[in-house]
Amino acid sequence: MNGTLFLVGVGPGDPELLTLKAARILASVPVVAFPKKPGDFSLALNIARSHLNPDAELLPAGIPMQVNPGAAQSAYDALAGQLDKLLNAGKDVAYLCEGDPLFYGSANHLLSRLNSAHSIEIIPGITSLSASAAAICRPLAARADVLKVLPATLGDDILQRELANADAVVIIKTGRHLPRIRALLEQADLMESALITEHASHEKQRIVPLSEYTPGEAPYFSTILCCRGADRWK
Amino acid sequence: MNGTLFLVGVGPGDPELLTLKAARILASVPVVAFPKKPGDFSLALNIARSHLNPDAELLPAGIPMQVNPGAAQSAYDALAGQLDKLLNAGKDVAYLCEGDPLFYGSANHLLSRLNSAHSIEIIPGITSLSASAAAICRPLAARADVLKVLPATLGDDILQRELANADAVVIIKTGRHLPRIRALLEQADLMESALITEHASHEKQRIVPLSEYTPGEAPYFSTILCCRGADRWK
Repeated sequence: MNGTLFLVGVGPGDPELLTLKAARILASVPVVAFPKKPGDFSLALNIARSHLNPDAELLPAGIPMQVNPGAAQSAYDALAGQLDKLLNAGKDVAYLCEGDPLFYGSANHLLSRLNSAHSIEIIPGITSLSASAAAICRPLAARADVLKVLPATLGDDILQRELANADAVVIIKTGRHLPRIRALLEQADLMESALITEHASHEKQRIVPLSEYTPGEAPYFSTILCCRGADRWK
Repeated sequence: MNGTLFLVGVGPGDPELLTLKAARILASVPVVAFPKKPGDFSLALNIARSHLNPDAELLPAGIPMQVNPGAAQSAYDALAGQLDKLLNAGKDVAYLCEGDPLFYGSANHLLSRLNSAHSIEIIPGITSLSASAAAICRPLAARADVLKVLPATLGDDILQRELANADAVVIIKTGRHLPRIRALLEQADLMESALITEHASHEKQRIVPLSEYTPGEAPYFSTILCCRGADRWK
């Protein structure tokens, strides 16, 4: 009998923010795969480490940054090939995903390659959005708000259009786009409420008003939360 | 010493989708409050029940539907008053929130009333969005997608405008707005990909293409997921 591939959301950083289901599955599977940028540690593995079966085989997958799409696609092809063999040999495998597997995650690359031939189960995880909102004690959205999640990698025209009509906005993948994003939020009159969180829920958590944030230090996974009117949810 | 108010996300329905942190806190607090529509059971309590300290005092809060805003606001005033007394008496209290407390939840009503006088900690939870996407094995959003969360209670003009420019859309609070939403999605050419999920992750889970869905049975917490181009994430 073939194995099952579990795409497991490990949440935003705090190992206690895994779900009970994720912890149960990670304690039982014999193989645990995870993404790892070449030459770097694996955040997903760091989060999940204390929950793994100590005898589990670890399978690091070197996935280059998405700025090099061809190389990333080849890396997912290679990983899918490895997983295919393990699943065919009857082994259950967990693949660790930061945050939630299906929320701007890399799980879609494995889903599209393996979903037709194998049994796949998704274990949802806490997103960095929810963790960031929890850290600042401010609603992500409420009542009849339009909530938009906007990758900072989008062009100015799209971002301007979307920011003009939004009650609550989350900007993800900020990284090197920070100066541009700051100017666009200023233009859209969203700066007053804007906060940037790094490593939400993690011991390295840092939360600063975007206006006071020192550029150049935003990690790829920082999240900007803003809303129209800071007292709108009272 | 005053108690702490924990606003605890209990996730979308499956009791195994609570976080380890939520389970730890619920096993320890002496008072557990939860919303309960008058004459109805409490979904949040049903989800969390197996995790509670068996000696915990249960405090059901009758919160009328938001269609009657005045009555709902009075109910939150009364609940905040009760919680204020318990916290001043040094008791820790957990308030159970379906899904994630700060994602269109009722936690903001307690935050705005109690945040200045008391210590409040938010425990994020799995949203119905993440659970719905997991159930259908389809990304919520990926890469540089614009993701929009749109309450069905919004007017046609806003919904039309937002649907016209969206890669991935989640419609929440569908309820009696179903026929209108269906027409708007048809207009925006989003119907082909649209799925409706009821009770995602729960044993009563039901997932149907929106085009085949029988109107009139959508519970308030059903979620519609759609995207532009069904094979866009391959």
